[in-house]
Amino acid sequence: MSDVNRAPSRSDYRHFLEIPTRWRDNDSYGHMNNAVYYTVLEMVIMQYLEVESQLDLDALGVRCFTVENGCTYHDALKYPDTIEAGLRIGRLGRSSVRYEVGLFKKGEQAIKATAFVIDVFVDKETERPTELPEIVREKLSAISSRL
Amino acid sequence: MSDVNRAPSRSDYRHFLEIPTRWRDNDSYGHMNNAVYYTVLEMVIMQYLEVESQLDLDALGVRCFTVENGCTYHDALKYPDTIEAGLRIGRLGRSSVRYEVGLFKKGEQAIKATAFVIDVFVDKETERPTELPEIVREKLSAISSRL
Amino acid sequence: MSDVNRAPSRSDYRHFLEIPTRWRDNDSYGHMNNAVYYTVLEMVIMQYLEVESQLDLDALGVRCFTVENGCTYHDALKYPDTIEAGLRIGRLGRSSVRYEVGLFKKGEQAIKATAFVIDVFVDKETERPTELPEIVREKLSAISSRL
Amino acid sequence: MSDVNRAPSRSDYRHFLEIPTRWRDNDSYGHMNNAVYYTVLEMVIMQYLEVESQLDLDALGVRCFTVENGCTYHDALKYPDTIEAGLRIGRLGRSSVRYEVGLFKKGEQAIKATAFVIDVFVDKETERPTELPEIVREKLSAISSRL
Repeated sequence: MSDVNRAPSRSDYRHFLEIPTRWRDNDSYGHMNNAVYYTVLEMVIMQYLEVESQLDLDALGVRCFTVENGCTYHDALKYPDTIEAGLRIGRLGRSSVRYEVGLFKKGEQAIKATAFVIDVFVDKETERPTELPEIVREKLSAISSRL
Repeated sequence: MSDVNRAPSRSDYRHFLEIPTRWRDNDSYGHMNNAVYYTVLEMVIMQYLEVESQLDLDALGVRCFTVENGCTYHDALKYPDTIEAGLRIGRLGRSSVRYEVGLFKKGEQAIKATAFVIDVFVDKETERPTELPEIVREKLSAISSRL
Repeated sequence: MSDVNRAPSRSDYRHFLEIPTRWRDNDSYGHMNNAVYYTVLEMVIMQYLEVESQLDLDALGVRCFTVENGCTYHDALKYPDTIEAGLRIGRLGRSSVRYEVGLFKKGEQAIKATAFVIDVFVDKETERPTELPEIVREKLSAISSRL
Repeated sequence: MSDVNRAPSRSDYRHFLEIPTRWRDNDSYGHMNNAVYYTVLEMVIMQYLEVESQLDLDALGVRCFTVENGCTYHDALKYPDTIEAGLRIGRLGRSSVRYEVGLFKKGEQAIKATAFVIDVFVDKETERPTELPEIVREKLSAISSRL
């Protein structure tokens, strides 16, 4: 975001995935449990890599290890909401990537949660950091927040 | 089913829900974990009651307690499959209902899993079995396997 | 059980595992969610095989695929209960095994749930049914209900 | 921590809970899934409040809503590890609290993950922020990092 005081809107994200909530996502408090937000982050990231971009990470010899993630909750999501998850790349390093995700409720404007995940790509055998395969870099650049 | 030797097909079910799998649904073996099938059963049942039929169980003063459930696995589902869950009512008692569910992979004919859930309706205060509210009985009868 | 009309007690099981519930195990109804019971079954079975019996299934070239499971709920477990899961082998075939599990609340006599899991051992490469490795058969026989 | 360049050790935390991992906690990569870390954070926090401190939040008329959380992963935990979760209070405001959690593998010195959760206490009816009940403040102060 150029304006850090402004909450992100859908137009700040480059790729979207609709995710129906499940009855089980709610916890004793009747809201989507906090841990489920991280399952949703993982889902939109992996869907972008493996389904949308048709990357076969295993064939490319790499895996993604998360080194840090976090989420700020503006308002509760809950079953039976349908989530619209927006994804963009905030930073692309030699072997790491910072994903930024915004979660919206379908049919509503205001953002419900903003989150990030920092992944390091590792060699699937040695599990040591490795340079991003070129095709992966290309696909991630395509949804950069710098566009 | 009239022919117990025949595996159920989509035409044996009365209500359907599409459910995208999540990356997290897979376990160490790379298949959808067995416990997730039960989350899917719960999801199609609650969606039929609360969303499709717009029943407000809480306002009706009841809750559903599961007394028995089970699943037979014919072939593995796995992320990123989209599941088509088919639902029908196998038996409707005074205070209990037997749901029967068939799980299919979108785009494939053969059934992946057949399952059932027996729920007892209880008074939400006393948690003792109570007669099915008439509107609930009506909505459940509408998807009976006896039709 | 010799007497099918008698609910199982702790003495009907041969191996036990204590499992603390998690806050997240409870659902909107304030009870341990039904799907979590299946996570508990899987846990006591895998702990008996891999930890208690120190079997390395991967090195033995096999995996276990569940073909059927089911659970009868007598009374609700809920966080913060500690679960005592009892395990026994109900039937041991050439390539399949029927596990029987009883779930108790620590400190209480009455059984909360009775469950079973039927697993087929498959070759980890072909994923076709294979004979139980001898060491696996030995360890499973040791907790047979026939003893 | 007084020394920000030093990784926290067990002595930096004030309350501990042992948590056995579950087979299901591992994901396709064979490690404890990232979302499960947040289930563990929630577990040690709620156990400290409701079990260790015997606070009945519902009777006190409050609930805790998480407004932000995050985790830094130093090394992977995985089933069948037993987790030792250490808890301390990093900041105590009028209506909010910052929990800091360190996750260790039982029997090992090096910390596996450091995490935080910022909760706001809300009135359980209005769901608006409310002052921390005095007994809650007392129990949280007892495990402050400032001690």
